[in-house]
Amino acid sequence: MKTELKFKNVSKTKSTIPGDIVITKEMQLPVIQVIDYNQDKIVRNSVETVRGLSNVPEGFTRWIDIQGLGDKMVLEELKSEFIIHPLIMEDVVNIPQRVKADFLDDYIFLVLKMFYQQNHDDFVEEQVSMILGKNYVISFQEKSGDCLDSLRERLYQSKGIIRKMNADYLCYAIADTIFDHYFSYLAYLSENIENLEEKVSVITEEADLRKIHELKHNLISLKRELWPTRECLNQLVKEEISFIGEKVKFYFRDCYDHILQTLEITESLKELTTELLNIYLSVQGNKLNEIMKVLTIISTIFMPLSFLAGLYGMNFVYIPELEFKYGYYILISVMAIITFGMFLWFRKKGWIGKKGIKKK
Amino acid sequence: MKTELKFKNVSKTKSTIPGDIVITKEMQLPVIQVIDYNQDKIVRNSVETVRGLSNVPEGFTRWIDIQGLGDKMVLEELKSEFIIHPLIMEDVVNIPQRVKADFLDDYIFLVLKMFYQQNHDDFVEEQVSMILGKNYVISFQEKSGDCLDSLRERLYQSKGIIRKMNADYLCYAIADTIFDHYFSYLAYLSENIENLEEKVSVITEEADLRKIHELKHNLISLKRELWPTRECLNQLVKEEISFIGEKVKFYFRDCYDHILQTLEITESLKELTTELLNIYLSVQGNKLNEIMKVLTIISTIFMPLSFLAGLYGMNFVYIPELEFKYGYYILISVMAIITFGMFLWFRKKGWIGKKGIKKK
Amino acid sequence: MKTELKFKNVSKTKSTIPGDIVITKEMQLPVIQVIDYNQDKIVRNSVETVRGLSNVPEGFTRWIDIQGLGDKMVLEELKSEFIIHPLIMEDVVNIPQRVKADFLDDYIFLVLKMFYQQNHDDFVEEQVSMILGKNYVISFQEKSGDCLDSLRERLYQSKGIIRKMNADYLCYAIADTIFDHYFSYLAYLSENIENLEEKVSVITEEADLRKIHELKHNLISLKRELWPTRECLNQLVKEEISFIGEKVKFYFRDCYDHILQTLEITESLKELTTELLNIYLSVQGNKLNEIMKVLTIISTIFMPLSFLAGLYGMNFVYIPELEFKYGYYILISVMAIITFGMFLWFRKKGWIGKKGIKKK
Amino acid sequence: MKTELKFKNVSKTKSTIPGDIVITKEMQLPVIQVIDYNQDKIVRNSVETVRGLSNVPEGFTRWIDIQGLGDKMVLEELKSEFIIHPLIMEDVVNIPQRVKADFLDDYIFLVLKMFYQQNHDDFVEEQVSMILGKNYVISFQEKSGDCLDSLRERLYQSKGIIRKMNADYLCYAIADTIFDHYFSYLAYLSENIENLEEKVSVITEEADLRKIHELKHNLISLKRELWPTRECLNQLVKEEISFIGEKVKFYFRDCYDHILQTLEITESLKELTTELLNIYLSVQGNKLNEIMKVLTIISTIFMPLSFLAGLYGMNFVYIPELEFKYGYYILISVMAIITFGMFLWFRKKGWIGKKGIKKK
Amino acid sequence: MKTELKFKNVSKTKSTIPGDIVITKEMQLPVIQVIDYNQDKIVRNSVETVRGLSNVPEGFTRWIDIQGLGDKMVLEELKSEFIIHPLIMEDVVNIPQRVKADFLDDYIFLVLKMFYQQNHDDFVEEQVSMILGKNYVISFQEKSGDCLDSLRERLYQSKGIIRKMNADYLCYAIADTIFDHYFSYLAYLSENIENLEEKVSVITEEADLRKIHELKHNLISLKRELWPTRECLNQLVKEEISFIGEKVKFYFRDCYDHILQTLEITESLKELTTELLNIYLSVQGNKLNEIMKVLTIISTIFMPLSFLAGLYGMNFVYIPELEFKYGYYILISVMAIITFGMFLWFRKKGWIGKKGIKKK
Repeated sequence: MKTELKFKNVSKTKSTIPGDIVITKEMQLPVIQVIDYNQDKIVRNSVETVRGLSNVPEGFTRWIDIQGLGDKMVLEELKSEFIIHPLIMEDVVNIPQRVKADFLDDYIFLVLKMFYQQNHDDFVEEQVSMILGKNYVISFQEKSGDCLDSLRERLYQSKGIIRKMNADYLCYAIADTIFDHYFSYLAYLSENIENLEEKVSVITEEADLRKIHELKHNLISLKRELWPTRECLNQLVKEEISFIGEKVKFYFRDCYDHILQTLEITESLKELTTELLNIYLSVQGNKLNEIMKVLTIISTIFMPLSFLAGLYGMNFVYIPELEFKYGYYILISVMAIITFGMFLWFRKKGWIGKKGIKKK
Repeated sequence: MKTELKFKNVSKTKSTIPGDIVITKEMQLPVIQVIDYNQDKIVRNSVETVRGLSNVPEGFTRWIDIQGLGDKMVLEELKSEFIIHPLIMEDVVNIPQRVKADFLDDYIFLVLKMFYQQNHDDFVEEQVSMILGKNYVISFQEKSGDCLDSLRERLYQSKGIIRKMNADYLCYAIADTIFDHYFSYLAYLSENIENLEEKVSVITEEADLRKIHELKHNLISLKRELWPTRECLNQLVKEEISFIGEKVKFYFRDCYDHILQTLEITESLKELTTELLNIYLSVQGNKLNEIMKVLTIISTIFMPLSFLAGLYGMNFVYIPELEFKYGYYILISVMAIITFGMFLWFRKKGWIGKKGIKKK
Repeated sequence: MKTELKFKNVSKTKSTIPGDIVITKEMQLPVIQVIDYNQDKIVRNSVETVRGLSNVPEGFTRWIDIQGLGDKMVLEELKSEFIIHPLIMEDVVNIPQRVKADFLDDYIFLVLKMFYQQNHDDFVEEQVSMILGKNYVISFQEKSGDCLDSLRERLYQSKGIIRKMNADYLCYAIADTIFDHYFSYLAYLSENIENLEEKVSVITEEADLRKIHELKHNLISLKRELWPTRECLNQLVKEEISFIGEKVKFYFRDCYDHILQTLEITESLKELTTELLNIYLSVQGNKLNEIMKVLTIISTIFMPLSFLAGLYGMNFVYIPELEFKYGYYILISVMAIITFGMFLWFRKKGWIGKKGIKKK
Repeated sequence: MKTELKFKNVSKTKSTIPGDIVITKEMQLPVIQVIDYNQDKIVRNSVETVRGLSNVPEGFTRWIDIQGLGDKMVLEELKSEFIIHPLIMEDVVNIPQRVKADFLDDYIFLVLKMFYQQNHDDFVEEQVSMILGKNYVISFQEKSGDCLDSLRERLYQSKGIIRKMNADYLCYAIADTIFDHYFSYLAYLSENIENLEEKVSVITEEADLRKIHELKHNLISLKRELWPTRECLNQLVKEEISFIGEKVKFYFRDCYDHILQTLEITESLKELTTELLNIYLSVQGNKLNEIMKVLTIISTIFMPLSFLAGLYGMNFVYIPELEFKYGYYILISVMAIITFGMFLWFRKKGWIGKKGIKKK
Repeated sequence: MKTELKFKNVSKTKSTIPGDIVITKEMQLPVIQVIDYNQDKIVRNSVETVRGLSNVPEGFTRWIDIQGLGDKMVLEELKSEFIIHPLIMEDVVNIPQRVKADFLDDYIFLVLKMFYQQNHDDFVEEQVSMILGKNYVISFQEKSGDCLDSLRERLYQSKGIIRKMNADYLCYAIADTIFDHYFSYLAYLSENIENLEEKVSVITEEADLRKIHELKHNLISLKRELWPTRECLNQLVKEEISFIGEKVKFYFRDCYDHILQTLEITESLKELTTELLNIYLSVQGNKLNEIMKVLTIISTIFMPLSFLAGLYGMNFVYIPELEFKYGYYILISVMAIITFGMFLWFRKKGWIGKKGIKKK
């Protein structure tokens, strides 16, 4: 999850010319799916070129779903086919971009971030750009594989109202599906925090410390994406846009509420993670105190005893006690009394005794 | 109290279709109470179906009180009976939702959070949704059992002005009763903090650490609900709504003031809990210093003495001191002087002596 | 000073009916003073009932000064005599309320907090409510005894311009006198902080820790009152109110500046208190290091010496050194050299020596 | 520098009458300089009374420079001579006031804070009030001695454009000179922080702790003054004021930029000081670890050795090893091996060895 | 990188006259490049004087690139040649200035900060000022050497659209190139943080502590520059300026988005650095606990053993155990049992054993 903080220096260094599309070798080759649908019919094609795609059949909505950005040809074709501003094409390719909404005369450009679970293991962050025109939506992803399969199924099986609606609703549906996965991501993070809460208040391993740090790292990254997402949705709801209907705006307002909730939960989780570290430190301190108590108890009991033993191990010619017949037994008794006294004193101080035993 | 941070993944995963109502098995079956009242008369019925309920008798106000959301039939009936937007019905069922107010042409939709003490033990958080129409209020709760019994009694016994007022006042009265319990919740938390303040500045047990953390957890959760509540009430006061009268708006403004106060107290308590942890850490540090002082005092006194005893326990053929007749007594005296000197030095350093004894 | 965080659960639980006045047994019985004045004349009466008091003599300003809220009769009479909104009467009685200003057609309702020193000991917080009408001011206090005596004297002795002005100036004068005592409170807190600053950087007693916490507690509480006070004064200055003259508004603007200053000083003091705790912790850490240095020095010197002594205390049949005539003296010399070497090493490390002695 | 947090209780307690001028004994007697200038001529007079000074010669600008506020006569004369509002005269005398700008019909009242280095030692904070009229500026200082000498010289020697401009420019020039010294103050603080940064990462003396605290204290105080200064300059730039020309407003905008920069640097320095304390604590922790490592190494090496020596110092009648001819040498060898083994183990743990030696 | 916090006291002390240009000896002598270009042609000249440069050939755009500010003559000439306000010329020379945009009738004045990598080592901060007129851009740098070489090449080789555009685009291109390097700077800092994250969770060296502090220092400084940069770009986008075309404004809006992203990343990195210090402290604490465990284990095992050895080293005339034939072997067995018991106890406490070994 840390990768989003690394910047693709190469692309940044090369694309010093604003509006220039720079393709690097690590980029995946694009797979282009075109889905045309209306209430009655749905057609899906895999295409190699985007030429002619701006010509959407009458009464249909077209979704051009591009996964992978590694072919300059395709992007240049798109630019001329749909008359897209060079800076916007640059933003599609130049990843990571800030989440944002740009309103142009003929289309809206959206940059969103997708978080989805890959291989049941960890969450992956990916940038999704969208261009919403009058009767088409073009979506761009860095890599193939995403969290939109449930949406595609809805389209094919005509679940809900999606097939009755236009491109603006499709755009909303994509965004909403992406945002729904934010909750799964938060649930995943929150579960991790709860597990650590249980564990950390008992033992303090370095592995936990790393996990706490990783969680904080992820929450900081998530929050960084959520703020501009909130702003971007707010603009979508507020702006007067001819090809987003009032009805769909109501749906976007619902999205906006969900993002606000996500943001608030993220903030709460971040605060809880900070708390987690504080607990970790406090438990560590308690551990240290426990350790030092053991050391001090042992030292305090055995140092005087050893001294006494040493005292009567001296070789002075005249040490009267050594001559006593029961000297040895008397000394053993004295030592026992000292030990017992120490024991009482530590118990009074609350270092050992009932409590002490329970705590250990 | 930690449950509100867990997300019902199942519902979130299934309801990918916006406006779809998804019922899970854990949900309680609904119990529906209908209360019709005007200044003179009050009628209360338990019903099984909501069909026909949109037809409120002339001059009456109707409160449809639904506890439990586990029956899709009832919710679908409600949707068609009162012509409610699908997204709003989804928000009623899809718990937790963010606290909010949605203003539609024919009704207002409110999501609130209720905190109430269950079984004299701990506080429980529950979502309450309300739909306020011209002459009716529909309230939805997750489970049966709430903090509105005092309000119901007021209705039956016609205490205060509630029976003279319309649906807008009923809506206010429900919200106000819910918000009144926020103060009980804060009082409960504040009492816990004060108990810990007393305790923590003396002993530092791990149980207290957990309690501090739990308090912080609760305050963070509460704060997360209060911010949108404040916003939601602000909207209620500011918006021009035909079926909320100026008089009731004044009452809502009072609610708004109370929520602001709640928010400020929550912030203060949060700051105090942070302080609590700092005290915990400081007391822990003081404890460690005390322990180490004991260890150091013991070591510093007995190490030189043991060394001297060891010195005269050596078996060198010629150690002149050993031959002295009073050698043993001289050594004992030297040891006594060393011990006394150490004692004075520690006293001067403030480690033992009057202060030291008092502190222990 | 901690009491302001406790909520009067009883009153909150009972007054579930909005606008209901609930009196509890702990409340003081009211003492009512009526002061009528104009530029030439001043009359002061103690009254038992407020009936007829709304009829202020022509050209006079009336101050109704009510100390103690424990008589429902008086409050109900006031409500009907001056036609006060039930919610406002509830706010007068239901303590603590948030600091606020409510603007109604015939009067302004103010809730303020008073901090004053009682018995030269500690500061007390008390709620003061005021109703400012065209030619009267009604002030409510929880208990008898306040910080307004200097203001009363000014009235009787006609100091300053107060007797030449109307009810709006009286209202300002009461608020200003209350706010002037905020500075005394801050001076008191600031003095405490400075005393602790001196002390804490030398010794770290648990008593100081408690004091730091108490100071922080007080500052958090104070800040919580100041924010709404600022807001309330801002409203007084900004709102168009017929019975507050432009001239008096200029005075309120001065109040506003003072509250801003109070707020800024409170924030600064809060930051300083946080610093104080940090110093406490650092000094604690320095102490621990000092203690551990002593222990380590003692152990490092005596452990090798004791070992050597133990070595030559062994009973092996053949230990050549023991036979040497000057073996004992050689060993003593070796021990002296070891001790001196250790001493030099510790000095080089900066643990003892000139610096070390100075620090202790 | 700590004095600005102490409040002059006396003056605050006495001046309960708004607009009353209260002089205390500690206040300096005023020294009044009157400087009249136009482009060609400059006249400077020391006066005892301000009577008649409102009559400025045609075409001249008058600067009345009052240092010391301890004479009620002079202030009362000023009040009537220039028709100044009583509250404003009170703010001149009642120190400290919040930095602010008050706009009246005939003049502007400014309160600023001056920081200047006294006796090459420490910086001093002093309040400077200014009244800017149509053709005069009155400046008030608590004490004689300030940072405006460079400005006076510029006036006398007609450096820059100051003599060609009017009273508004003079007012700007005074403010600008005061603000220029903020940078010297910041440079002084920043230098101190850098010195501590160097020092603190090596040794952790209590003297440094005090210095860190003092720096933080100063930065907190400075920040408290800068926020209202920023606000006050913003008002000067935004407000429509007849006697501040557009040209001079441009100059004030420059001041505003400088104050913003000062504020941002102050915030940065505050953050750095917080960092400094964190480093202090970390270095302290490293120290403790170092100390404990020494103790543990010594104990771990000598405790087993001493035990072995003690073992063969026992007086059992039959201990076979004691009879061995080379028993002593075998034991010595075993001890050497143990010591060497320990040494290797500690080296492997990274406690001693190449790294360890370098670190020390 | 720390130098940006040091203020050039000298220049600040001398330039008390607003609008005065003060040159110090450390300043580099200016190198002036003039580049005239249109779509077809590009001419580049090195000049010694700026006289006559305001006369730009028809249809050309002129870039006057001044590196080094150490010649008062040149700056004075510029001032009169391009009729620049004295305060603006002062801001060019008086470094560091706050990042800002000043809008005048005939030109816009921009102050920006440039971060670029020098000698593959560390990043350098430098102030860049720009004056954008109708058909010219004047750029000022403190020193020769910058990050604009790629831009110059683009101009010469006519890459992208730069040669087709006017002075406003040139100004944008310079700013954009500067801002592009912010990402490299962030990438550099981010990489450092990641390296430390790896390292710090294992060992806690003081060198790392310094690095953490340095990173925080840099991020604080960067943030301080980014806030006003954001503000400045916002003004450029919002203001109505005759000689910045709508098309170029769209480009500036893109810049604005990048700066927002930079700001958000900087904030995130700052939070991560704070986390880093927390980890450092926690690892330090874990280390201490490890050390103390070793000490306590050693002491707890050997102290009782040494005591027993000492006990039977005593010289009492009658100690029965000493007479036993197998006394020595019995004692050795007892000691072995004690040691083994201790070992089990420590293992149960989790101090040693499988886990303990792994952790080490």
